[in-house]
Amino acid sequence: MNLMLMTEREAKEGLPLADARSRHLLKTLRVGIGAKVHVGVRNGRRGIAVILTTEPRLTFGIRWEESIQPMLPLDVLVGLPRPQSARKVLHDLASLGARKIRLFRPAKGDPAYATSSLWTTEEWRELVEKGAEQACSALLPEVSHHADLAEAMGACPSGGLRIALDPYEASGPMSGAAPKGPRPSAAVLAIGPERGWDAAERAALREGGFELMHLGDRIARVETACVAGAALCLAALGAWRAHRPIVPDLDAG
Amino acid sequence: MNLMLMTEREAKEGLPLADARSRHLLKTLRVGIGAKVHVGVRNGRRGIAVILTTEPRLTFGIRWEESIQPMLPLDVLVGLPRPQSARKVLHDLASLGARKIRLFRPAKGDPAYATSSLWTTEEWRELVEKGAEQACSALLPEVSHHADLAEAMGACPSGGLRIALDPYEASGPMSGAAPKGPRPSAAVLAIGPERGWDAAERAALREGGFELMHLGDRIARVETACVAGAALCLAALGAWRAHRPIVPDLDAG
Repeated sequence: MNLMLMTEREAKEGLPLADARSRHLLKTLRVGIGAKVHVGVRNGRRGIAVILTTEPRLTFGIRWEESIQPMLPLDVLVGLPRPQSARKVLHDLASLGARKIRLFRPAKGDPAYATSSLWTTEEWRELVEKGAEQACSALLPEVSHHADLAEAMGACPSGGLRIALDPYEASGPMSGAAPKGPRPSAAVLAIGPERGWDAAERAALREGGFELMHLGDRIARVETACVAGAALCLAALGAWRAHRPIVPDLDAG
Repeated sequence: MNLMLMTEREAKEGLPLADARSRHLLKTLRVGIGAKVHVGVRNGRRGIAVILTTEPRLTFGIRWEESIQPMLPLDVLVGLPRPQSARKVLHDLASLGARKIRLFRPAKGDPAYATSSLWTTEEWRELVEKGAEQACSALLPEVSHHADLAEAMGACPSGGLRIALDPYEASGPMSGAAPKGPRPSAAVLAIGPERGWDAAERAALREGGFELMHLGDRIARVETACVAGAALCLAALGAWRAHRPIVPDLDAG
């Protein structure tokens, strides 16, 4: 992990030695007093923490960033995939910085996927946090569940770049270039289920202003389509222009 | 799997019932005489196969596509990652249609990764084949191993779009737009190891005409960077414009 998420209180008061994060630092990474690590408060600021004490608690002196990292204006609608795909989707979209992940029950889906322990326990939240920690970000996408595509679409902001991936009825290839005209300030990306959209979903997408686009004549897995589509949306939005890494290198920090 | 790879001879003579592909069709998918399935000869044509017999062998009547699917002009150089990342890289780059995957020993890498059973057995090849089968493609990227980045760069075609991802010393954000001037006909994408490029590697990349670019201020895992970077390169090349799915839907085929 490139960043350790904690609460404001933990940042001030430190962590008990039995905490999994303490054990990771002291036992796995074998770091000690004076070592530096990236930390962040969930949906708050990040900082460079220096370990001050390792007994009786792990405590830090933290130099905080001046302002909270900006959220990226990308909502992703995903037809609820099988749990092993959903795990990758949650992690990878969190690491790319999507703002919302809206899971809907697709027409050609399996309702049993919703009963997985991924969703009935807190496992989904851990995956989102791991994705953010990997990205060295403290921003966690909101994850919501919707009865169907129409409900998920209704929960999204209107306007902006609206793209649905569809290898079969696309009007053309997805592009990472900015669309013609004024640059949109946000994007909604819709990814269908493994078995594809049905006719009613395609009609709803077109009605809702989504353009159906493809990634060539190869069929991507749901999790691969999410990463490829999100990267192309973020590039088209120019979302990466404000590039401000927390620090280039901890050793130099 | 969306396509079943086989040899020319298997396509003509069929498969023994004990073959894993026969068992998958007959036992897992429970299909029978008359069922249709996509098949392909490794690096050759694909076709729609109809099951003709299930006893004493599984045999097919195959309608072949008229010409071989085009290879996509993308070479990816990847600093040899830990085996669990490498598995995803092989699968996903094969499914996106990369032409070559060149693995090199990075300066900040772990030489032990090369001794994994992934590389000492045929497991790497199975992952590449699974990626192509997922994509409904019969084209398999060539996978090669190189002593270092310089050797891997030397094996690539010169010119074209040349991008290395680097969150720390990038000159700007990676774009999915076509570069100014005549559109390049091929791309080389270089992805560093988990711990990043060293100074000598960065110098070699710049010397070799690579532009260092970033995906914003979030740190992606190697496998996520490969998918995002490959998608942006393919979009910039316009590689998806010739979109010709083998068939839109098997039931309608």
